[in-house]
Order: sequence, then structure tokens, then C-alpha cells
Amino acid sequence: MKREFDVLFARNEFKAESFLEELRGKKPLFICTIATTETAKIQGISAAGKYPEFTDYTPPADAELLLLGKCKCINGVPVTPEGIPTPALITMSALRLADVPVLVASGGLKVKPQIPFLDFGGTPGRDIRSGNAVDNVSEVLERATIAGAQLAKTADYLVIGESIPGGTTTALGVLTAMGVDAEGKVSSSMPENPHGLKCDAVKAGLAAAGEGFGSLAGDPVRAVECVGDPMMPAFAGLVVGAAAEVPVLMAGGTQMTAVLALVKALNADVLCNVAVGTTRWVVDDASSDVRGIVDQIADVPVLAADLDFGGSRFEGLQAYEKGIVKEGVGAGGAAIAAMAATEGAVTKEMLLGEIERNYALLMGVK
Amino acid sequence: MKREFDVLFARNEFKAESFLEELRGKKPLFICTIATTETAKIQGISAAGKYPEFTDYTPPADAELLLLGKCKCINGVPVTPEGIPTPALITMSALRLADVPVLVASGGLKVKPQIPFLDFGGTPGRDIRSGNAVDNVSEVLERATIAGAQLAKTADYLVIGESIPGGTTTALGVLTAMGVDAEGKVSSSMPENPHGLKCDAVKAGLAAAGEGFGSLAGDPVRAVECVGDPMMPAFAGLVVGAAAEVPVLMAGGTQMTAVLALVKALNADVLCNVAVGTTRWVVDDASSDVRGIVDQIADVPVLAADLDFGGSRFEGLQAYEKGIVKEGVGAGGAAIAAMAATEGAVTKEMLLGEIERNYALLMGVK
Repeated sequence: MKREFDVLFARNEFKAESFLEELRGKKPLFICTIATTETAKIQGISAAGKYPEFTDYTPPADAELLLLGKCKCINGVPVTPEGIPTPALITMSALRLADVPVLVASGGLKVKPQIPFLDFGGTPGRDIRSGNAVDNVSEVLERATIAGAQLAKTADYLVIGESIPGGTTTALGVLTAMGVDAEGKVSSSMPENPHGLKCDAVKAGLAAAGEGFGSLAGDPVRAVECVGDPMMPAFAGLVVGAAAEVPVLMAGGTQMTAVLALVKALNADVLCNVAVGTTRWVVDDASSDVRGIVDQIADVPVLAADLDFGGSRFEGLQAYEKGIVKEGVGAGGAAIAAMAATEGAVTKEMLLGEIERNYALLMGVK
Repeated sequence: MKREFDVLFARNEFKAESFLEELRGKKPLFICTIATTETAKIQGISAAGKYPEFTDYTPPADAELLLLGKCKCINGVPVTPEGIPTPALITMSALRLADVPVLVASGGLKVKPQIPFLDFGGTPGRDIRSGNAVDNVSEVLERATIAGAQLAKTADYLVIGESIPGGTTTALGVLTAMGVDAEGKVSSSMPENPHGLKCDAVKAGLAAAGEGFGSLAGDPVRAVECVGDPMMPAFAGLVVGAAAEVPVLMAGGTQMTAVLALVKALNADVLCNVAVGTTRWVVDDASSDVRGIVDQIADVPVLAADLDFGGSRFEGLQAYEKGIVKEGVGAGGAAIAAMAATEGAVTKEMLLGEIERNYALLMGVK
């Protein structure tokens, strides 16, 4: 795979290379869109919370970590059932190394973060099996688009990430509703990807909504309303508003493909200014296929931060090499932005050092 | 009065000139802090709403006007009882001429705007006569400080304005509590400044709180809690967070002096990076004395946009020359920023032309 700095060009190498070139030495703004959905509480769907109710706290805790360097709404930091810490640790370390400004935007939350955040008028999401998952989609889209247009004037480019447990299941929902074959292709924060559970939830949701594969290809708003999550209209609106003016790095794994499908349906003209930025763990993942989904939507490049925690002195970080967590909170995109902004001065080794330093501080180990 | 572009140096000419020089050709970010207080509903206190209940709608409507070019939560635009339109018309025109990005931040609102806005966790303010005017002051201050620090990284300098009906009365409250003699010195949006009413409200509030002149000089948080408004901690926090890094133009009239007193008490070190930016109508106002208040607080410069609506073809704009409205929604500071950002290419004549164009559109006249 071609590369520059510690960034891999994982899809459409030519476009990926010229996209990264555009970011070189430029000033990014990182926006973390957070939201919650009851979908995350389906048994076995998500590793983002040890207990189902904990998934309500993961997004605000991640956002607090980015802005404060510690969480306020929970003790410690979000961890998987195995005790592996949130990828927000990667994001926070990358953004701090390159002094990248951070804003948080809410798509709809059950628990609000104890930090400043942009409110787009959204509400928490329901279980997609209801077929009636998200309220206020048009309104949130509109407000996020306005915010994206203003924020595009404050930076050379935007990097947008997300934190929403259950997000790959809702991604599968929206992709399916919009006619993109993503069955068995969305990623998971768990080493054993529960494709069957996700697929069952999506099928139940589409049936409840009276919809089927591809029936909402032309109606992105209804696709989100039926089987999506509240992060999606916030994220898609920001992209639509900003990418008309500046490059936008959509920072995330397979969830980004659902947002990409929405952006394409809302305003395909901006796609030329968009790339997906993720981690090597996602592009190398045998249990998902981010490229195979993107291929069906649009010819946008995929970049991947070549992170490698194999040599870490902490088992909790080595676990990333076993396919646990993989991505989230814009970790890959934030790492790419830190490398591009510093023209490669921030390397993957330096980043791992900073991540280990923060890991030790936050996990209370040496 | 010395000047550069169409900007007057109204206090501390030397510092004012060098402050403006720092802004020349640079990229500002405008933030409008909005909030509501029941204080505005005291009969005769405010012209910002024709009926007392209307004051709940003025701040969100002003914010919508800035971002959308029209209001959503009301028909038309906010007007005084005489039908004179909100100064947000000036702000919007100035920011658009110079393509300045805008964000809205809420300090605590009864009616939320139908646009994206930064939430600092504040709640609407009570009547200061209760002596218990604002909740959550420390928390809002802390969150606004965090936001200010992040936003300072996205622009060369910040321009911060406000919209809160009743704000000069609460300003008098906080100034008095902090030992600044502002009696008869705060401005008014009405041609007849109701100093007696404001003073009575402040006296009642301080008595109810068991406080008196200067008794809270060392406790800015409690000064706001007792007799302030929810715009203040949002605004002061943004200044404290941002002015540690970049220049901050505090855009407003005599209300800015209360925020200045808070900032001084919170972190006097940042005052060297701060100026007040207002309009000629405020600095020339015989019924108030912005310089006389600033003199008691800190040696910060005061700049004033030399706006002149005497030659306007609309009576509704000519009225500004009779002392109606005068300032608000950061109008003066936005005008100064538009002139500085364009190195004088935006003149007061050009600005009046754009304001008249928007006036005609929004007021439905020709």
C-alpha cells in the first residue's frame, strides 16, 4: 500500500495522495459528533459499554476526555468489557501533539457532557427494531449544515469524528435501506463481529417501518428516521455544509460509509472534497470490508493511520492488534491530521509514546 | 478623537490604535452570546421587546438573524416599541460584508433559537430584585472558558457580542456589587434612560441578597448569582479562555464594563489582550458614560465604529441618531472587525448601504 508520513493510502491511491497533500501543513479543526441510541443496548451488539446502560455515558465521557483530558460524567475512562480503553485516548493524544482545536457537537444525547457542546436540536435515538429510530432528522441536518458552513471558515479543513455505541448496526441499517450491500461488511469494536445480531436488528427495523433493501435510496432523511441514529444527521450536515468550502476528512471506520451514502443523497457535489480517514486496524480487518462498501457509494479515497500498538508496554494497548476496539472518536482521522499538520513531525512512534503516557495517567498504571 | 478607517479611538488612544493595528487584515471569529432574564420584564426597563414576554424571543431571534439572514422563532425581526429594528441588522450586515464566521453561544435561554448553538449548561435568569438571579454560574464560566480556549485556536482574534434584554440593569447590578460606581452611567436602548428604575431594581436585589455596594468585589461568581444575568458568565468565560491566546474585542456598550469587571476579578492577566468595541452612539451618549465606568476598572482601550445613519433613506435607521437602540448584538464591534479585516475597504458608507439593503428586505419596504 502506498503511503506518506505514517498514513496508508487504502483506497484510490491517487486521490488519497492528493487529498493528503492538500492537508500538509494546514490548520485543521476537529469536531466530535456524539449521540446515543437504544440500539446499543441490544444484548451482544456493542463493546462500547460493559453494561447496556453504560452506553449512554460513553459518548459524553469520550467528549469530556477530548476537551478536558479526563472524564467528568464517569470515573476513569470508557473501557470495553475486557478493560481496553476508549479510542478517544488516541484521538486526544493526536490532537494535543499537533495542538488541533476541538469542538463537540451533539446529535441527541441521553446524558449530556459537562463541557461546552454544539446543540443541533436532536434527541436520543430509539432501538432501530422499532423502525422509528430518530426524530427531528431534517431539522438537525439543516442546523448542522449551517454550523458546517460557518466552521469551514475557521479552519483550512475539518476532521469530523463520532462516538455512538451501536453505530455500526445503525450504519448497516441506513446502508441497507439505501440499497448498499453491507451485510457482513460493517466493522465491530469486538474481536468477534456479531454480524448476525446486527443483521437481525436491521431486518426487524426495516420490516417494522414497511421498508426493504434499497427502498429508501432516494430518501436519506427517512432512512435515518427508520433505522439510523442521531449522530448521522449531525455528521452528514456538517459534511454537507463544510465540504462545499474546504476539505473534510470523515474520521471513522465503516460507520463513515453510511454517512457517505447520506451525503451523496443530500448533495453529491461535495463528495470531491471528502475522504474517509481511519486506522490500519479497520482497513486490515478480515471481519469487515470498508473498501467494499465505499466502492458501492462513491469514488472517495480512504486513508488509514498506520498505527501499531504491537510494541506497546501496555497489554491494554496491545489488544488493539487483536482486533479489539479498532477505531472510534475519530482516532484514525485525528492521527492522520496530526501527522499532516506537522508535515510528518508527529510519527506513529511519537504518537504511541503520547498515548502510553496518557494511558498511564488515566488508567492509573505505570 | 483620533481614528483609523471609520473607527474612533474613544478611550486610551494609544492602546486603541495599537489594538486596531493588531487586527488589521487578520481573520476574526464572531461569537454572539445570548441569554434571557426576567429582569427585562420589569415595566419600563427595556425597549428590546414591545411586550414584556417578547423579550424572551429577542435573543434567539437576533441569533437566527445573524446565521440565517432572517428570524425563525418570530415573524419579521425584533423591533423597539417605535418599530426600530434590532441592531443585529448592523451586525449581520457587517459580518457578511467581510465574510466573518459566526457562532452563537447560549448562557441560558427561555426560548431556544432554531439554529446550531453552543450550550454551556446555563439556565434563564430570574428578576434581580430576588437577589438570586442566576444559577450554575461557576459551571457556565468553566465551560465557556474551555470553549474560549479552543475557539482562540481557530481565528486570529475573537469578537464577542451579546443579546439580552434588560442587560444594562443587570450590568449596573454586578458593577455596584463589585464596587464600581455606575449609577446614572449605564446606557439604554431607549431615548429616555430609566436610570431610576434600574437603580431601584439593583438596590432591591442587593438588599434581598444581603449585599451592598462593593461587598462582592472579590466574589465575581456570587455577584452574578445575586444581581447579574446568564449572559455574563458565558461572555466572561469566553474572554478568559480566549484572551490568554489571542486579542478579544468585547463588542457592546456599557454592559461590557460589567463583563470587564468579572474578567478582571477572574484573571486580570488577560486584560492586556482585551478592548471594548462599541458604536459612536454609545460613546457620544449624554445619558450614559462608558469611559467613566471603564476608568474605574482597568486601562483597556475603547474603540467605536463611527456609524452615522443621519443620511439614511429610512426613518427606522435615522432613529439611531436620536439615541434609540444605540448598540447591541455586538453591532459596533462587528462593524470595527469588518473594517479592520478588510483594511478599510468596508467603509461606514458601504456598511450603511448594506444595512439599508437588508432593512428593506427584512422590513418589507422599498
